[in-house]
Amino acid sequence: MELMFLGTGAGVPSKQRNVTSIALKLLDEINQVWLFDCGEGTQHQILHTTLKPRKINKIFITHLHGDHIYGLPGFLASRAFQGGDDELAIYGPVGIKQFVLTSLKVSKTFLKYPLTFHEIEQEGTIFKDDQFTVTCIELDHGIQSFGYRVEEASHPGMLLMDKVKEAGIPAGPLLGKLKNGETIELEDGRIFNGQDFIGPAQKGRIVTILGDTRKTANSVELAKNADVLVHESTFDGSNRQMAKEYHHSTNTEAAEVAKSANVQQLLLTHISARYLPKDIALLKKEAQHIFKATKVVKDFDEYPVLLRK
Amino acid sequence: MELMFLGTGAGVPSKQRNVTSIALKLLDEINQVWLFDCGEGTQHQILHTTLKPRKINKIFITHLHGDHIYGLPGFLASRAFQGGDDELAIYGPVGIKQFVLTSLKVSKTFLKYPLTFHEIEQEGTIFKDDQFTVTCIELDHGIQSFGYRVEEASHPGMLLMDKVKEAGIPAGPLLGKLKNGETIELEDGRIFNGQDFIGPAQKGRIVTILGDTRKTANSVELAKNADVLVHESTFDGSNRQMAKEYHHSTNTEAAEVAKSANVQQLLLTHISARYLPKDIALLKKEAQHIFKATKVVKDFDEYPVLLRK
Repeated sequence: MELMFLGTGAGVPSKQRNVTSIALKLLDEINQVWLFDCGEGTQHQILHTTLKPRKINKIFITHLHGDHIYGLPGFLASRAFQGGDDELAIYGPVGIKQFVLTSLKVSKTFLKYPLTFHEIEQEGTIFKDDQFTVTCIELDHGIQSFGYRVEEASHPGMLLMDKVKEAGIPAGPLLGKLKNGETIELEDGRIFNGQDFIGPAQKGRIVTILGDTRKTANSVELAKNADVLVHESTFDGSNRQMAKEYHHSTNTEAAEVAKSANVQQLLLTHISARYLPKDIALLKKEAQHIFKATKVVKDFDEYPVLLRK
Repeated sequence: MELMFLGTGAGVPSKQRNVTSIALKLLDEINQVWLFDCGEGTQHQILHTTLKPRKINKIFITHLHGDHIYGLPGFLASRAFQGGDDELAIYGPVGIKQFVLTSLKVSKTFLKYPLTFHEIEQEGTIFKDDQFTVTCIELDHGIQSFGYRVEEASHPGMLLMDKVKEAGIPAGPLLGKLKNGETIELEDGRIFNGQDFIGPAQKGRIVTILGDTRKTANSVELAKNADVLVHESTFDGSNRQMAKEYHHSTNTEAAEVAKSANVQQLLLTHISARYLPKDIALLKKEAQHIFKATKVVKDFDEYPVLLRK
C-alpha cells in the first residue's frame, strides 16, 4: 500500500506542480489502484510513472472544482485505449455524472468498459468489502467537498513458528490448518488448538484523504488514529484569515488537525504556486512545530503505508 | 505571424507529443493569438512557452473529439487567474457550447471575462474584419470536422524612396500623405500624385488549418494557394486503407492535397505514437516525394509565415 502524488498544486497547474490527483496503490493487497481526484493532465502525469490506467478501477472525487475533475474525461477515454476493459466506478458529489457523461457524449467517446457512478447523497460508508471500507464526511469548502477515510480490515495473526517447533509439530499440511486456527491431531495422538499458535491480529491501515477545506472538526473525525492524513495546505501559517476567506487551510491548521486526530503521519499537499522551493522548507518547519511527523509532498512523491509493528 | 504547435500527437497524449493544439501568433499584426483546438494539457504546454493566455482571444475548434477539446475548460478557468479580462470567442461545431458551459457550471467556475460562442451552422465566412477573414468548410471525419482558412488582407504598397529622392521631395509630413496615396503640392508649386510613388500592394498571407479528415476535395479548396497548410497525418503511406477506415489521412494523401492546392508549405501534424523518432524522418521523406516543401512538426515547433517577396 503506497500513496503516489500525481498533482500537488493548488488551483492552476505550474511547471513544478500539477493540479490535484493522488493514487492509492493497493497492488500487493488487491492488485488495484484507486485515484483520489483527477485534475487536468493527470493522464499525462501517469505517463511518467509505472501506474497502469487499466488497474485504476475506483476514482473518488472530493469536490467538483475544475482543478480536481477536468482530467477525468481524458483519463477515462485514454484508459479504453490502454487495454482497460474492467469496470470503473466513480464516487463523488452529485454533478460528477453530468460532467463526465456530457463530456463523453459531446465528444462522441464510447468507452469499452462499464462505467458506474456513485453520487454521494449521504455521509457514511460508501464502499465496503472484506478488505476495505471507505467512509466519507463533508468538509467546509463553500462548494460541497468530501474527505475520505479508507480503512483496511485487520490482518490475521501470524503462525508462531518458535512455538510450533517447541511443540514438535512437524512441517506439512497440518501446519496450514493450525495457521487457520483449527484444531489438529498428530499421528502420535497429540491434539493442538491453532488459536494457541497464532500471534495477535495486526490492525489494518487507515488512510485519510481530504478534499479542499477550512479547518473543521469533521477532518479530525475522518483522520482519527489514521496511519496517514493527506491534508490541503493552500496557505502558510501567517495567512489564517485569508485561508478562511477562500475556504482553504493553512499548514499549521492542518498540523493542528493531525495532532487532534492522533495520526501517525501528516502529508501536506495542494501547495500554492506562490510558494517557491525555498518556502517549502519553511512550510514544513512551521507545521512541524505543531505536529512533528509532517511532510510537504511534491509531484511523484511516493509514501509507503506500512503495517504498524 | 507565426504558427506554434502546442500538441502534435494523435488521440492520446504521449511523453513526446501532447494532444492537438495550435497557436497562430498574430502579435505583430494585431497583438492577439488565436488557438486552433485545445486538447487536454494545452494550458500546461503554454507554461513552457512565452504565450500569454490573456492574449488568446479566439479559439477555433475543428471538431469535438476529446483530444481536441478536453483542455478547453481548464484553459478558460486558468486564463481568468492570469489576468485575462478581455472577451474570448469560441468558434466550433454545435455542441462546444454545451460542453464548455456544463463543465464551468458543474465546477462552479465563474470567468471574469465575457465568453462568446459562435457555433457553426453553415460553411463560409465565420469572421471578418479589416485585416483578417476566416472561412470554414466541412471535411470528412465521421464526426463533423471543419477546416479553417485564415486570409490576411493585402498590405498596401511601400513608399518607393528612390523615386521620392529622384523627384526631390523633401522629408516631412507631406511624405506621410504621399504614402497614403494622396496628392501633395510642394512649396515650389510642383504637384505629385501619391499613387505614382507607391509600390505594388503585397498579397496577404493565407494559413489553412484542417481538422482531422480523410483526403477530401474540400481540403484542396480550403488550402488553395495558401502560404501554409497544416494537415493531419495519422498514418504513413502504406496504411491508406486503414486511414480511410478510421476517417484519417496518410502523410502522402496530405502531400497530394498540398500539391493540388498549390501551397507554399505543408506542415504535417497529428502524428500517432506508433511512429518512433526514427520513423518521423521516413514520414517526411515519403511525403516529400509528392510535395517537396513538407515538414513533420513536433511539440513547440514554430513556423514563421512570411510575406511573399
